[in-house]
Amino acid sequence: MRKFEFQNPVKLLFGEGQISKVSSEIDSKARILLTYGGGSIKRNGVYNQVKEALRDYKVIEFGGIEANPDYSTTKKAIDLCKNEKIDFVLAVGGGSVSDATKFIAAGACYEGDSWDFVSKKVTITKALPLGVIMTMPATSSEMNNGGVISRRETKEKWPFSSPVLFPKFAVLDPTTLRTLPKRQIANGLVDIYVHLVEQYLTTTDHYMATDRLAEGLLQNLIELSPKLTSDSKTSYEDLANYMLTATLGLNGWTGMGALQDWATHMMGHEVTAIAGLDHGQTLAIIYPGTMDIMRDAKHDKLLQYAARVWNITEGSEEERINQAIEKTEQYFINAGCKVRLSDYGLGKEIANEVADRFKSRGYNIGENGIVTAEKVREILLSRV
Amino acid sequence: MRKFEFQNPVKLLFGEGQISKVSSEIDSKARILLTYGGGSIKRNGVYNQVKEALRDYKVIEFGGIEANPDYSTTKKAIDLCKNEKIDFVLAVGGGSVSDATKFIAAGACYEGDSWDFVSKKVTITKALPLGVIMTMPATSSEMNNGGVISRRETKEKWPFSSPVLFPKFAVLDPTTLRTLPKRQIANGLVDIYVHLVEQYLTTTDHYMATDRLAEGLLQNLIELSPKLTSDSKTSYEDLANYMLTATLGLNGWTGMGALQDWATHMMGHEVTAIAGLDHGQTLAIIYPGTMDIMRDAKHDKLLQYAARVWNITEGSEEERINQAIEKTEQYFINAGCKVRLSDYGLGKEIANEVADRFKSRGYNIGENGIVTAEKVREILLSRV
Repeated sequence: MRKFEFQNPVKLLFGEGQISKVSSEIDSKARILLTYGGGSIKRNGVYNQVKEALRDYKVIEFGGIEANPDYSTTKKAIDLCKNEKIDFVLAVGGGSVSDATKFIAAGACYEGDSWDFVSKKVTITKALPLGVIMTMPATSSEMNNGGVISRRETKEKWPFSSPVLFPKFAVLDPTTLRTLPKRQIANGLVDIYVHLVEQYLTTTDHYMATDRLAEGLLQNLIELSPKLTSDSKTSYEDLANYMLTATLGLNGWTGMGALQDWATHMMGHEVTAIAGLDHGQTLAIIYPGTMDIMRDAKHDKLLQYAARVWNITEGSEEERINQAIEKTEQYFINAGCKVRLSDYGLGKEIANEVADRFKSRGYNIGENGIVTAEKVREILLSRV
Repeated sequence: MRKFEFQNPVKLLFGEGQISKVSSEIDSKARILLTYGGGSIKRNGVYNQVKEALRDYKVIEFGGIEANPDYSTTKKAIDLCKNEKIDFVLAVGGGSVSDATKFIAAGACYEGDSWDFVSKKVTITKALPLGVIMTMPATSSEMNNGGVISRRETKEKWPFSSPVLFPKFAVLDPTTLRTLPKRQIANGLVDIYVHLVEQYLTTTDHYMATDRLAEGLLQNLIELSPKLTSDSKTSYEDLANYMLTATLGLNGWTGMGALQDWATHMMGHEVTAIAGLDHGQTLAIIYPGTMDIMRDAKHDKLLQYAARVWNITEGSEEERINQAIEKTEQYFINAGCKVRLSDYGLGKEIANEVADRFKSRGYNIGENGIVTAEKVREILLSRV
């Protein structure tokens, strides 16, 4: 059992109508930067609710944050924070907006070039306080202290984190999800699932409590997926359960003391950086390959996963593991994602390009560093 | 689905050797009140570890906090805090020490009589910062903002809570549990279990995530109980899993948005206040009665509990519910607790005395106020 430290101070405001409460969470004299994405919040009414809640504040807006938020975009917002003497940053949107907002909040308190946070591993020790109104559940960015930032000019995508980047609060109003496009539902169902297995599906010496929590949340996703992807209108209750499951998927609760993997995310980030696929799309392609190629190292936990998450208890150990991998892949397909590189016109070239990137970096990924550059190659080639 | 707000900022320091880290969590100039119970920490070596960790601080000690901590005891400690200008209170012990320390921390910042917190429902808005080194898992007091205080002179026992009473940190070192007496293991196994079902076993309209978490933690307890109660030495891993499960049992995670019961705790507090039974002992007696007498209101959730926690899926609904109640009672017996009032020489008199107390107060208990004074009478009489 590993020692661990854990703390997550984010305040959740969950339920219909909670957007109106943000003003009680932000200092009344704060100058607020309101960040958002491509404008869907203006079409679905969320923007108006937020503006109404902030009617007594000085609010400066920064819209247009793209999926896989780009360094160049955040740079403009950081300048705006400095010029406008912003005291608080409020993100309204999905994981990309939330991630970008964390990067902006840290950059606004840093004299140098914020790219240093990822390129020079400069420790983020100061950030503007921030809050998140989550409207596209997937990343759990609303309740954790990390994010991912891209730089298209150099085809890079990197994670960053700091204890000072926990949002002060996260508003989770399930009614904001009523207009979510199917593509985002698919990406979310995959992303949340893979967050959970990246923390869980390694070895069996985890704490029983975190294992049980991860298994329970995975079962929730499996139960919710057909309801979220059907053509009928999704009920408030299903949206609420989906939203809460997403938030708990990567808020640290299931990761306490756990030996974690994250190889699939690291490979997926490269595929996104090179070929522009959605984050969820990359995970749906790669994760079944990680399970298969790394099956020896993950053997015991794969059997536990098969039994407890999928109720697979019949057949030889190898058969049970094969079934668990198939069930997982089928879950991704049912969610609405494709699961092969070739489905996006990609092939061996990108597998080799990604593997070569890891080779040149000279370090392995995955739990205990079991995924070498050659394993990366093998995993990605198995998913052509 | 109910709206909810949730926040739990407690920092966990989990694992062997973590006691040495407390100094990095407390201001170096703080004058510390060190609180503890009957002295078991001096016999098992924890006291020396704590003193070593605090060697650079001004530390004033306050030992002798009893189980079901008494108002009169906390009063002395509150006076000590005021006279010695204490800045931080560090609890070392179990739930009673932690609860008392919260009451002391609040009382030290209050000009009036601290009994006002329970008798006049004076809101606790200020408290000294506190930390907890937990050495007897059960109450989750180390990771929540509440406690229970007794007053023997008037035979009363009341809960209190406040957002300012979250500990700054909780140290959970499983090696401190190696000398736990069987009676405390029994009480802990019952208390943690009942905390979970008080939050969970009401109706089926809870969030899926919190239901799954509660069910998982209950399964952990059922799996751990034989190992903890056997005569062989308990492994570090089992102690660690027990300790973490206890902390998560009442830290708010499984209670988010949940309709909660707590009738058994309220009845149990009265039995302790009148007859002096341990808290866990009262719960083991009463909870099977609550399940049985309130079975109609809890019908659907009882079936879910039977299926998911105990794997009971055969038989009529009533048979499944009966089996679930029997299994629960047997879990309490196997943990080492007695399950009848008569096992402690108590009978109809105390059932009526407790019911009359609730009658005179004029309000009902349980989820949605379904447990009237007459239901209290019926539940307790069924447990003679």
